[in-house]
Amino acid sequence: MNEGVEWAVHSCLNLAWLGDERAVPAAKLAGFYELPAAYLNKQLQALARAGILTSTSGPRGGFRLARPPEKITLMDVVAAIEGEEEAFRCTEIRHRGGSDSGVRSKTPCEIHTSMRKAELAWRRELASQTIADIASSVEGHSSAAPERVRRWFDDTRT
Amino acid sequence: MNEGVEWAVHSCLNLAWLGDERAVPAAKLAGFYELPAAYLNKQLQALARAGILTSTSGPRGGFRLARPPEKITLMDVVAAIEGEEEAFRCTEIRHRGGSDSGVRSKTPCEIHTSMRKAELAWRRELASQTIADIASSVEGHSSAAPERVRRWFDDTRT
Repeated sequence: MNEGVEWAVHSCLNLAWLGDERAVPAAKLAGFYELPAAYLNKQLQALARAGILTSTSGPRGGFRLARPPEKITLMDVVAAIEGEEEAFRCTEIRHRGGSDSGVRSKTPCEIHTSMRKAELAWRRELASQTIADIASSVEGHSSAAPERVRRWFDDTRT
Repeated sequence: MNEGVEWAVHSCLNLAWLGDERAVPAAKLAGFYELPAAYLNKQLQALARAGILTSTSGPRGGFRLARPPEKITLMDVVAAIEGEEEAFRCTEIRHRGGSDSGVRSKTPCEIHTSMRKAELAWRRELASQTIADIASSVEGHSSAAPERVRRWFDDTRT
C-alpha cells in the first residue's frame, strides 16, 4: 500500500482536531511531519476529489474536512488514495491454453470469488472505522494530543 | 497483488486434482494456461520453500502438493508468494517534525492499529478457505473439471 495512505489518514486526523474554522495549507500539513509538501499535496487533492476534503485557494486558502470526522471512514481514505481496484486481479487464466474447454464458463472463477470474500472482509473492517473513532482512541491515551496539534498549527509559520 | 498469486492458486488446484502419484514439471503446469514457464517456476519454488509443494529433480521430476488440499489455505499460498509483510506499512510519521512531543509514545499508533484490524480480517478470511474448498466449489458447477485436467496432463507432452 502506498505510503500516501498513512500521510492522508494522519492529515485527516489533524484536520479533525483543527476544526473547520480554518483552512490549512498543504505545506503546513506536510511541515508537521516533515513530509515533502508537493507529494502530500497530491494526496490532499485526491482526498478533495473524493469529497473528503474541501480545498480553497488564495492567501488564506488550504484544506478542511468536507464533512464531520464521524462520516469519514478509513475505507473512504484508502479508496481515495489507492483507487477502488481490487488487490487481487483475476486475469481469467482459466480460459487460456489447455485449460480452455472451448465453452467459456459463465460461472465466476471460484478462486476470484474466494479472494474477493477476503477483500470484502477487509473493506468492511475499514468501513467500520472512522476518523472520529481514531481521534477518540488517541485522546484516550494521550489527552493532550488535540491541543498540542492546535498549538503547533497556530504558532508555526511555514 | 502479484499476478503470481493467481497462477499459484490455480496450479495448486490442478495439483490437487492430479493427486500425489505423479510429479508435474513447471513447464507442464505453465503450459496448461500458456503461462511463461520460467516465471511460474519461480512461484512454484516459492511454494516449495513454504512447504506447500515438494519438488523433485530428474527426468521424472516436478512438483506435487506437500500435504492434502484440506491443509493448504489461501493464506498459505498468498503468504508464500507475497511475503508476510503487512499491506499497510506504518512508518511512524507521528514521531517526526512538529508532531514530535519529544517523548516517544509507547502506545501503538492508532492508525496502524486500525489498519491492522482490517488486515487481520482479510487474513482470517483467507485462512478459512482451503484449496480443497475451492476444488469442491468448482466441482459443484463443473463436475467434469477434474477429469478434464487429468486428461490434459496425461495426454499432453511439453
